[in-house]
Amino acid sequence: MALDKLIEKIVEKQNPTVAGLDPKLAYIPDFIKKESFSKYGKTLEEAAQALLVYNKSLIDSLCDIVPAVKPQAAYYEMYGWQGVRALAETIAYAKSKGLFVITDGKRNDIGTTMEAYANAHLGVTDIEGDEASAFGADALTVNGYLGSDGITPVINVSKKMDKGMFILVKTSNPSSGELQNLQLEGSESIYLHMGNLCEEWGKELMGKYGYSGIGAVVGATYPEQLAELRNALPHTFFLVPGYGAQGGTADDIAGAFDSNGLGAIVNSSRGIMCAWQKEENCNPEDFAQAARREAEKMKKLLTNVTGEIKLP
Amino acid sequence: MALDKLIEKIVEKQNPTVAGLDPKLAYIPDFIKKESFSKYGKTLEEAAQALLVYNKSLIDSLCDIVPAVKPQAAYYEMYGWQGVRALAETIAYAKSKGLFVITDGKRNDIGTTMEAYANAHLGVTDIEGDEASAFGADALTVNGYLGSDGITPVINVSKKMDKGMFILVKTSNPSSGELQNLQLEGSESIYLHMGNLCEEWGKELMGKYGYSGIGAVVGATYPEQLAELRNALPHTFFLVPGYGAQGGTADDIAGAFDSNGLGAIVNSSRGIMCAWQKEENCNPEDFAQAARREAEKMKKLLTNVTGEIKLP
Repeated sequence: MALDKLIEKIVEKQNPTVAGLDPKLAYIPDFIKKESFSKYGKTLEEAAQALLVYNKSLIDSLCDIVPAVKPQAAYYEMYGWQGVRALAETIAYAKSKGLFVITDGKRNDIGTTMEAYANAHLGVTDIEGDEASAFGADALTVNGYLGSDGITPVINVSKKMDKGMFILVKTSNPSSGELQNLQLEGSESIYLHMGNLCEEWGKELMGKYGYSGIGAVVGATYPEQLAELRNALPHTFFLVPGYGAQGGTADDIAGAFDSNGLGAIVNSSRGIMCAWQKEENCNPEDFAQAARREAEKMKKLLTNVTGEIKLP
Repeated sequence: MALDKLIEKIVEKQNPTVAGLDPKLAYIPDFIKKESFSKYGKTLEEAAQALLVYNKSLIDSLCDIVPAVKPQAAYYEMYGWQGVRALAETIAYAKSKGLFVITDGKRNDIGTTMEAYANAHLGVTDIEGDEASAFGADALTVNGYLGSDGITPVINVSKKMDKGMFILVKTSNPSSGELQNLQLEGSESIYLHMGNLCEEWGKELMGKYGYSGIGAVVGATYPEQLAELRNALPHTFFLVPGYGAQGGTADDIAGAFDSNGLGAIVNSSRGIMCAWQKEENCNPEDFAQAARREAEKMKKLLTNVTGEIKLP
């Protein structure tokens, strides 16, 4: 199962970090943008070109110390189909460098439509008997509001293609409780109910290290719920957003890990990508090295919490 | 507010139908596919070209009798960035023919990321001070699981650009009840709670016909809940999937309309798109006319239920 591959890469790199690739133009150094825009002006095409150059440099700089990257689909769609092409090219490049790729799309639909999303992002597309890969990530984030009709198609594609997914359970944002924290009759919260569904659905995709191919998104900003969910969902690997820029610290995340230091991968997007804007006197041309320095710092803080990360 | 434009078009056409544009290759007549694939073979590029040719013919044939189209993003993403380009071109073509365009993307995220989705699909993208339109639909379907952090950015873009959204409340699929029907403490269901949030959020986008810019997705397959929600949510316009292929009938939808025949727009995707495959002895070259005949049939069935559709 695909999350086994992620787990192996985490152990190999001794680093439970996923680097978010959310390339807003504001995060990209001027020298890259100037190079792009000097050709045809400020167009979606040239903006997408700048994203790709930026992403490739970050990937080159990070690929031997982080196990995974997480491109956020929204930041590519914002730059039109040209941006979406940059997403496909970013995924292909990251995979060529041995990285596990989680496309953060939070996709959701039902039946054949969800199957189309699953084939688009994880599987292959049938073209009159021939097959083509549209985006080809290793895992996709998914929203479970529509119930199993929206999850079964992703399970089927994951089985066939050895891929996985992360389902939104308890998100990192301030308003996540508006719906997710509501108590159901019988005193379970909605997020715990969704978490239990992940365990249930995951039975169909069990991997060899005790975790299934169905992970859960659980925010770093809610340490208590993170620990509650780690206990309640022993076979569900966590993707943890909200570290750094959103306020979550390494200590906040301690409860997400199991006794082997596994159980969670922690995302940092702006923290790593924009390190060059925060480091004192950082030469913008040095942006990728600044990202690496920040990723090394984060690795150290996280492994202080996990200790040595071991396969069970 | 953007849903006012939709309401005006529904009244003008006397038709509460939105034609879904979910162009799987299997729905497209062979003569169109052969024309595309004869150029460079069975590639994503040629598949996307076939989608666009098919969509444009459908739009030409339907644009004077239906007020709106709803392209489903999944079916474009399945054909890679080339398919996503066909989505952008389909939206632009539909708008040039006077149609209201609802992109069915069920997007969801928080803060600046949700703002990126809103700008991508409804707004404009800032490129170093210049602005470009990435997809430019009139409304977007949205999943509200993350709470108001995922809705406020869409409200802000909608205000600025005169656009709207439809939030998933009670979806048409068999398993929608797994989460949405659960009862909260205090005896309200999750879908009703989500519906009430739509009313609340909609206050910021009130239009001139009594409906806000925030609509709700409520399935045709649950007539009781449709009527319950119509009563509970007087300012929330409904986008109703599940008619036809999924089993919903015109009578099932009766409860979705108000006394002016407004309050809902009913989607048909396969029913209209694939009419040529179901009509006896239909020449495939006649596919767009078959779609029109089916849309006329549907209009008649729906307006039997609504009566004359009037502005309040």
